[in-house]
Amino acid sequence: MEKKMAIGIIGAGRIGKLHAENISRLVPGVVIAGISDVHMTEDIRSWAQGLGILRITANPQDIITDSEIQAIIICSSTETHADMIIAAAKAGKHVFCEKPIDLSVQKGLLAVETARKNNVRLQLGFNRRFDHNFRKIRELSKAGTVGDIHIVKITSRDPAPPSPAYVASSGGIFLDMMIHDFDMARFQAGSDITEVHAIGSVLVDPEIGKAGDIDTAIVTLKFANGAIGVIDNSRQAVYGYDQRVEVFGSKGSAEAFNDTETTVKLSTAEGVAGDKPLYFFLERYKGAFVSEINSFIEAIGGKHDVEVTGEDGLEDMIAALAAGKSLKEGRPVTIREMKKELGVRQ
Amino acid sequence: MEKKMAIGIIGAGRIGKLHAENISRLVPGVVIAGISDVHMTEDIRSWAQGLGILRITANPQDIITDSEIQAIIICSSTETHADMIIAAAKAGKHVFCEKPIDLSVQKGLLAVETARKNNVRLQLGFNRRFDHNFRKIRELSKAGTVGDIHIVKITSRDPAPPSPAYVASSGGIFLDMMIHDFDMARFQAGSDITEVHAIGSVLVDPEIGKAGDIDTAIVTLKFANGAIGVIDNSRQAVYGYDQRVEVFGSKGSAEAFNDTETTVKLSTAEGVAGDKPLYFFLERYKGAFVSEINSFIEAIGGKHDVEVTGEDGLEDMIAALAAGKSLKEGRPVTIREMKKELGVRQ
Amino acid sequence: MEKKMAIGIIGAGRIGKLHAENISRLVPGVVIAGISDVHMTEDIRSWAQGLGILRITANPQDIITDSEIQAIIICSSTETHADMIIAAAKAGKHVFCEKPIDLSVQKGLLAVETARKNNVRLQLGFNRRFDHNFRKIRELSKAGTVGDIHIVKITSRDPAPPSPAYVASSGGIFLDMMIHDFDMARFQAGSDITEVHAIGSVLVDPEIGKAGDIDTAIVTLKFANGAIGVIDNSRQAVYGYDQRVEVFGSKGSAEAFNDTETTVKLSTAEGVAGDKPLYFFLERYKGAFVSEINSFIEAIGGKHDVEVTGEDGLEDMIAALAAGKSLKEGRPVTIREMKKELGVRQ
Amino acid sequence: MEKKMAIGIIGAGRIGKLHAENISRLVPGVVIAGISDVHMTEDIRSWAQGLGILRITANPQDIITDSEIQAIIICSSTETHADMIIAAAKAGKHVFCEKPIDLSVQKGLLAVETARKNNVRLQLGFNRRFDHNFRKIRELSKAGTVGDIHIVKITSRDPAPPSPAYVASSGGIFLDMMIHDFDMARFQAGSDITEVHAIGSVLVDPEIGKAGDIDTAIVTLKFANGAIGVIDNSRQAVYGYDQRVEVFGSKGSAEAFNDTETTVKLSTAEGVAGDKPLYFFLERYKGAFVSEINSFIEAIGGKHDVEVTGEDGLEDMIAALAAGKSLKEGRPVTIREMKKELGVRQ
Repeated sequence: MEKKMAIGIIGAGRIGKLHAENISRLVPGVVIAGISDVHMTEDIRSWAQGLGILRITANPQDIITDSEIQAIIICSSTETHADMIIAAAKAGKHVFCEKPIDLSVQKGLLAVETARKNNVRLQLGFNRRFDHNFRKIRELSKAGTVGDIHIVKITSRDPAPPSPAYVASSGGIFLDMMIHDFDMARFQAGSDITEVHAIGSVLVDPEIGKAGDIDTAIVTLKFANGAIGVIDNSRQAVYGYDQRVEVFGSKGSAEAFNDTETTVKLSTAEGVAGDKPLYFFLERYKGAFVSEINSFIEAIGGKHDVEVTGEDGLEDMIAALAAGKSLKEGRPVTIREMKKELGVRQ
Repeated sequence: MEKKMAIGIIGAGRIGKLHAENISRLVPGVVIAGISDVHMTEDIRSWAQGLGILRITANPQDIITDSEIQAIIICSSTETHADMIIAAAKAGKHVFCEKPIDLSVQKGLLAVETARKNNVRLQLGFNRRFDHNFRKIRELSKAGTVGDIHIVKITSRDPAPPSPAYVASSGGIFLDMMIHDFDMARFQAGSDITEVHAIGSVLVDPEIGKAGDIDTAIVTLKFANGAIGVIDNSRQAVYGYDQRVEVFGSKGSAEAFNDTETTVKLSTAEGVAGDKPLYFFLERYKGAFVSEINSFIEAIGGKHDVEVTGEDGLEDMIAALAAGKSLKEGRPVTIREMKKELGVRQ
Repeated sequence: MEKKMAIGIIGAGRIGKLHAENISRLVPGVVIAGISDVHMTEDIRSWAQGLGILRITANPQDIITDSEIQAIIICSSTETHADMIIAAAKAGKHVFCEKPIDLSVQKGLLAVETARKNNVRLQLGFNRRFDHNFRKIRELSKAGTVGDIHIVKITSRDPAPPSPAYVASSGGIFLDMMIHDFDMARFQAGSDITEVHAIGSVLVDPEIGKAGDIDTAIVTLKFANGAIGVIDNSRQAVYGYDQRVEVFGSKGSAEAFNDTETTVKLSTAEGVAGDKPLYFFLERYKGAFVSEINSFIEAIGGKHDVEVTGEDGLEDMIAALAAGKSLKEGRPVTIREMKKELGVRQ
Repeated sequence: MEKKMAIGIIGAGRIGKLHAENISRLVPGVVIAGISDVHMTEDIRSWAQGLGILRITANPQDIITDSEIQAIIICSSTETHADMIIAAAKAGKHVFCEKPIDLSVQKGLLAVETARKNNVRLQLGFNRRFDHNFRKIRELSKAGTVGDIHIVKITSRDPAPPSPAYVASSGGIFLDMMIHDFDMARFQAGSDITEVHAIGSVLVDPEIGKAGDIDTAIVTLKFANGAIGVIDNSRQAVYGYDQRVEVFGSKGSAEAFNDTETTVKLSTAEGVAGDKPLYFFLERYKGAFVSEINSFIEAIGGKHDVEVTGEDGLEDMIAALAAGKSLKEGRPVTIREMKKELGVRQ
């Protein structure tokens, strides 16, 4: 039998556990050689043993320095992302890092450069690019089916707002929530964003406003290839996770609607009813979480380039920061201006 | 038998003929007593006789001064709208006027005031408010079914671009095309627009650019009631007339999809296919053209207020002008600023 | 102006009035020269005058013998159908007759032969053939899009059961209700029925059972061209008029779903809901009632053959009688056997 | 950690492998202790080792007599089913057996009785009962949402016909294909079938006719609870696996449509297109294959009764045999008659 690729995981929170379970059940050819969590508990240890993971540690360095391990999945807290990428890259490990790349663009840049210099693959966890529906749209537009892309429209609404405490430390709606949509917009447009304009308000929960954030936003986009776009976000769609994308072009339009649990239609005297959208990201992007890891493994194996690069993560983050600036100053903000302000080489 | 209400029509172009035919076939209790067209031809005369119209004239004054006529439908060229409204109002006739109210906001204002002073009803021809789908959404939101309105989204795309010659004299995409959507946005939000921001480009036909216009646009909106919105326009959706509206609020979302000719689904080895949207406004808003006249007749009869007022027409026009300014200057423009510039009392 | 074709109507009940109003508003080139009703009332007279009908009479002979009238629409009670067809045909008038052709197959046969001998057009009122959805399916299958037809499936359910009194004199579910579906089945299969097998039960209303009828039925069909089919009927679909057709063949399937008032989708915490089907035949087949008359006028004008012939009406009726026999005797019944029993030449 | 339940698998063909892989990846708390295949090969051995299966043997007795093993999944060839069930039951093992229970009703009966006497659970592999869509319908009808059940409609069409060689040894369309639908019908009706009537023809492939079978069939059903039903089958739906169910009752209708790979709608000048149904049973019933095993494990654990019993398997088989008889003799056949003929106690 072929030797399996050994992977280490840093961070055993919800998303770290999800990746670990997906890998052990659904990603063939890969074995989890170790997992670390700075807040290691008996529960985590027992769960990890159940998955057959041998090295279970509180120290991420144990994972990074393990000579058996070829690639590392970083699921630790956001402020550690760049540091972990840098350490892993220096140790010659390929890296899959959850989004965002860091809270600091500068540290993110350093992480990307370190990965490049050390010749390791770096993939960011923008899993929606691997969603079956959105991927199909991208395939159709790449095949020329919708012609030249004119408009990219993204609807992205969460089923329920986070707690005000979460909001306060989240970096705000653009960095915490819409960053996924900036990535999706760039993915679907096949082009970088050049300018954003944001409007938004506190309509869902006044506590979110008190925490200094908004909960409802619309952002328009200009792309380098001439296309334009728009994203709308709400922290609360009471009917469930609303995740739709449309790419409109010179030859037509491709639209992805929400997934549902069943196709059942119930017709009664009250009306005709169907299922609500799948509840939240764990349900909707269940398959995408597996596909992104498979793609990462394939990229390590040289089958194709990394599909969501560190550079993507930086561009997405800069778009999010520009949107925040746009909202605050009530004017469009170019990515060029934002990069200049951040000291990012253009 | 009850005596029928006598109506006159000014202008026998495409839309004047459409109203005349609708009224004679589908609007009970109303008789067309006269029709005028400054370019009267044998064809128009013969067509009007076929409908049983007695007074057929080149002179609109003949219609305006006809003592039998209680109400006038103005379908003449746009630059005459305000003059005709004013003349009709002074003659004590109720007025239904095609959109826009005029090319000049000032003349439009004067027309609205004249109608008010003379105590006649004035309705503008924003027929989409009477579309079965969009009306249902408004009814749902008025009934509280979607809760407080947070976001209004409008997709509005024509099946084919107009000629560059038409574009050159059209007033541009915002006044010619998106004005319908500004009206729809205000209708659905149940609130006036306070600020717009426009982005757009020439993506469909370079000749449109040479004519000084754009053919693809996205405009974001702020409403007085705190809601936000977005409209996207394209001069060419190759699959047909794309007319969709979504109203999203605290209790849910109501979305109207396109109408189709049939419900037939064809499943073959090539795929599963359905009908394209109805081709253009004559097909899609066929019923709405009848409903708006019925509503006008009812408003004259005192059954309810006019459903699309002259003031609505002015607000829509000012929003369109603000969008043009926003696009030109690359910044959001408030309605307050626009009104000040136009010398409109706030 | 071209001279209009003069039409007479016999019977001013619900369906007679519907045809009269459709013709006067929506069928160009035709004028209603007279209408009769054996139970003439002031209300009917006043309604007819409102439509501009000149000859209003209690005596159908006045219509039949009117030398101005070229064609007659028979909407009188079913037991008079054949007699009226025969009288009209002998007077040289083209005939449109509501379904069924008669309560007696023998009289129906005679009516068909009389029309043929007198060289007048005879069209039966199976309006569903003119429904936009079902017509599209037939066009697709005639164009070869679904290949050879293998299976025809028809769902046909009324929104609410008729009164037991109506049921008692209706001729039973097969003659009263499913006869439409036998006609649709023959239309869609492009072939006559050769054998039927019926099962059914009283599940909706025990009173229907006491009246000697059933209210729920499934009938399988064999067609002369080798295809097979199935029809299901219920007297009560609480969600509205359920009228669906599927034609399945060697190259695919074409399915028609129900029409709805709007396309609006409402998503709330309770679920995702859409419109119920249009309520009943007046709503669903509104356009088909107009189209069938237009087609009749065109057939008279020689533009095409009659689209629903007297022979169709007889075949449909014999299928309905065979279904009744099948249910009663608990076995399949061939059309050949039924025709033999009825003394109909094969 | 809790001790895992040890399972053995008899038969390592396509379906045996599917169950083995599902169990090892997706069914927690269960370990595959052994697998047998009378045609053991190096490939099977290597595949089984890859799954970590310890006992790999050509002799099913090794599995049946293994004292570690608590339950056995029988995926051997159909003619061995009853023998394997009997042997396993006598050894005190719970049994999950692929459908049909046997080629012989009598042996099937013996198997059911042996399982009962030995107090082991016996579940049949009618996986469609565990399909998310069909299960939702059953839940809705059990909750009373559709009221009393009047009509059960099942559409079941394969994407491509089997080879004539397969057909020749398949037992015919009713035993090989429609048996799933008889089971679904009984499941959805919540009642046993009392009478069937079959019509059918060779419309897909003349070779199927030469092999003594038909490829297109419609069967009507009467249920013990008074409901009626209909199933249509085709060996070839060129657009993919067509698997739909409708349950219609006094309070409404619940319908399940096909599953698709994505929700993407593509609108172009050619039309509006969506995905075809998932290709075949491995795709469509992917989740159901896992759920049926989970349910079996839960039934062994006493969490609920077996959801598809041996008795179900016998009833389904008898319905299939009755349908064959009905087709041959051109008349309805009662289950009572069929059981009498088969010597099955009623």
